[in-house]
Amino acid sequence: MNTKKLPFSLEEIKEIIKTHPTPFHIYDEAAMRENARKLKAAFTWNKGFKEYFAVKAAPNPVLMKIFKEEGFGADCSSLPELVLAEKVGIKGEDIMFSSNNTPAKEFVKARELNAFINLDDIRHLPFLAKHAGIPETISFRYNPGSLKEGNLIIGHPEEAKYGLTREQLFEAYKQAKEMGIKRFGLHTMVASNELDPAYFPETANILFALVKEITEKIGITIEFVNLGGGIGIPYRPEQKAIEWKAFGDAIKAEYDKIIIGNGLPELKIFLESGRAITGPYGYLVTTVQHLKYTYKNYVGLDASMQNLMRPALYGAYHHITVMGKENQPHTVKYDVTGSLCENNDKFAIDRMLPEIEEGDIVVIHDTGAHGHAMGFNYNAKLRSAELLLRPDRSVMQIRRAETMDDYFATLDFKLIDKV
Amino acid sequence: MNTKKLPFSLEEIKEIIKTHPTPFHIYDEAAMRENARKLKAAFTWNKGFKEYFAVKAAPNPVLMKIFKEEGFGADCSSLPELVLAEKVGIKGEDIMFSSNNTPAKEFVKARELNAFINLDDIRHLPFLAKHAGIPETISFRYNPGSLKEGNLIIGHPEEAKYGLTREQLFEAYKQAKEMGIKRFGLHTMVASNELDPAYFPETANILFALVKEITEKIGITIEFVNLGGGIGIPYRPEQKAIEWKAFGDAIKAEYDKIIIGNGLPELKIFLESGRAITGPYGYLVTTVQHLKYTYKNYVGLDASMQNLMRPALYGAYHHITVMGKENQPHTVKYDVTGSLCENNDKFAIDRMLPEIEEGDIVVIHDTGAHGHAMGFNYNAKLRSAELLLRPDRSVMQIRRAETMDDYFATLDFKLIDKV
Repeated sequence: MNTKKLPFSLEEIKEIIKTHPTPFHIYDEAAMRENARKLKAAFTWNKGFKEYFAVKAAPNPVLMKIFKEEGFGADCSSLPELVLAEKVGIKGEDIMFSSNNTPAKEFVKARELNAFINLDDIRHLPFLAKHAGIPETISFRYNPGSLKEGNLIIGHPEEAKYGLTREQLFEAYKQAKEMGIKRFGLHTMVASNELDPAYFPETANILFALVKEITEKIGITIEFVNLGGGIGIPYRPEQKAIEWKAFGDAIKAEYDKIIIGNGLPELKIFLESGRAITGPYGYLVTTVQHLKYTYKNYVGLDASMQNLMRPALYGAYHHITVMGKENQPHTVKYDVTGSLCENNDKFAIDRMLPEIEEGDIVVIHDTGAHGHAMGFNYNAKLRSAELLLRPDRSVMQIRRAETMDDYFATLDFKLIDKV
Repeated sequence: MNTKKLPFSLEEIKEIIKTHPTPFHIYDEAAMRENARKLKAAFTWNKGFKEYFAVKAAPNPVLMKIFKEEGFGADCSSLPELVLAEKVGIKGEDIMFSSNNTPAKEFVKARELNAFINLDDIRHLPFLAKHAGIPETISFRYNPGSLKEGNLIIGHPEEAKYGLTREQLFEAYKQAKEMGIKRFGLHTMVASNELDPAYFPETANILFALVKEITEKIGITIEFVNLGGGIGIPYRPEQKAIEWKAFGDAIKAEYDKIIIGNGLPELKIFLESGRAITGPYGYLVTTVQHLKYTYKNYVGLDASMQNLMRPALYGAYHHITVMGKENQPHTVKYDVTGSLCENNDKFAIDRMLPEIEEGDIVVIHDTGAHGHAMGFNYNAKLRSAELLLRPDRSVMQIRRAETMDDYFATLDFKLIDKV
């Protein structure tokens, strides 16, 4: 029995496939908006609350526009992501530019858009001043090192390249104040795909205590705290999603205790979640093109690693539904593969599924974040289209599939005759 | 002390950077041609010998043209790779189409080009016949399962998705013969990046013995054996390259023993190497944009995972030269990173290097295969240019760097106003 539900029926998908051949990613707009509203509702207690959608998770302007309408900003990590935000009409303090090992021109663009800039290193402060000028507001990314445990995907904070040490953090605010910067933020991001609800209030506790200490020692007011992202999603059917209401309440308890309890000025809470915003609401829809029986049983899809790299890159689990066979016994063990000449090109290994036939429609769940976004062109494979399932059940193609001309675009075939 | 040599001086690279800003991949044409000639010379004893360059390693038409001039064919694994071969003027039996989980339209194109088709599964034989017609020649990919050990990168053969079992192989040739197919080949590929010279004659031994057995049992003549690729390169300075002469001689010894010794008909030896053809002759040239000192020392390059994914994907070692500092003591331990918001975005971890300054030119070695080819656009990072260092020391840009317009090409920004 398959226990993960889909937002579309087999009949609907068959209708969509008539005009949009598989493979494609499809996003559920109604569910994304509902989730966004639940997140916002969980933080009504904090006047300045804002979620900055992590563009890298699903860098599609239509999705960004939907989240803009829901009151989200954009968390950008590169120049093209800043330009995407600009094209969607997101600007100023609705952009958080949070990057590392940052080229000068990216700081220049962030300043041009009046984005909040979150610095990853103390040495970026003079670098920013030199190349892009001193902004009114600055934020720093804190790396708590061994004070915080980290988790499996992001690793131990003291081995991560991100952020400033505690000592550097105090020095950085001091320098920023001396440079005439007026407004300040504090950021951290120490987890990725974390499902333990206790993890986030613990992080908030560390940051709120730090706000108190910075305020007292440096004599500045911290205007916002960016708790980062890292909120996990239940990729496996037996896992439990983080409930936004409980999440918000747990952060509020720490806020009341430390910020209000110590009479500190009002503090805006920011998040920059990506996975928890789009992850569960995107689906990779594929067709079985071959079955193979050798030393194992293989299901060959018309999608490959270029559509979804997480299983190959992280050994990540993605749930699989064989449409129309949800209630059949899952008695056959398959490796579900793509068509790359690359041994890692498997969506699932030793997965129990119903008996599969060629032509079956196979849906891979939870591909709404870091799915299409991580695709490559290895083996000259082309990246697929992205569709949006609208609340009225119509379908909008929000990214076309790549063509061979796209793949050849950076080549000049006339050069063949010059060697 | 740095012991891996570069084919260009610091002065030359500084001159190149004036018109081609870093990061870029640069390939050494003279060294590639010399290597190609050595490989061919090692197999002059086999009249039908051909190396089919594995296009996936470095899918650039200028490189393919160079190898065409050196007498190589093209090993293609997808429709765009077939089209690349066609555009370079490679066709017919100079193409080996070796794919898995293959879509019908790719077989159609392979047939149109009269390519050799190497089938990955027994079920592909009727599939090919139905969708693309019966070819004159067919080859099958053998997966020896537990009869052969495999190696670390490609894994155990019996867990790999590739190829036919022994039993299926005999059945497949029988069916092919009955279908009226006239010419036959046999293929395997059980290793990746293998540096043990004993590995390949052992594989040849298995295949030659199989040729004898197939000939006797099925009553067909096997015209060629494709030993696959998998020949490693010395990524680490202490590793030793496979010598083509010794490699060819070791295969010849097996050939003499089994093929000639048993009076079997002349057999063509094919290889489909990629890594050993371009790998050591490509270099990723980067500039240090930031240094960072937190819990560890970080060198931030202007390249990221999108230029080279092997360290993140496989934990692979790539040697690093800091140009102009080759003879300085390597006394500082660095993590060498890109600028992605992705914890895996490191080219080296805990690498001993000379003391590095911002602006230093850092070269990452052995990126000529599976380097640019595996790049993605995660974090909206753009892929870099590819340059060719000609034998006359001039430089030809053989692929331009991606632009933001390339990155946005599959989007339609007018849709923003429709949601």
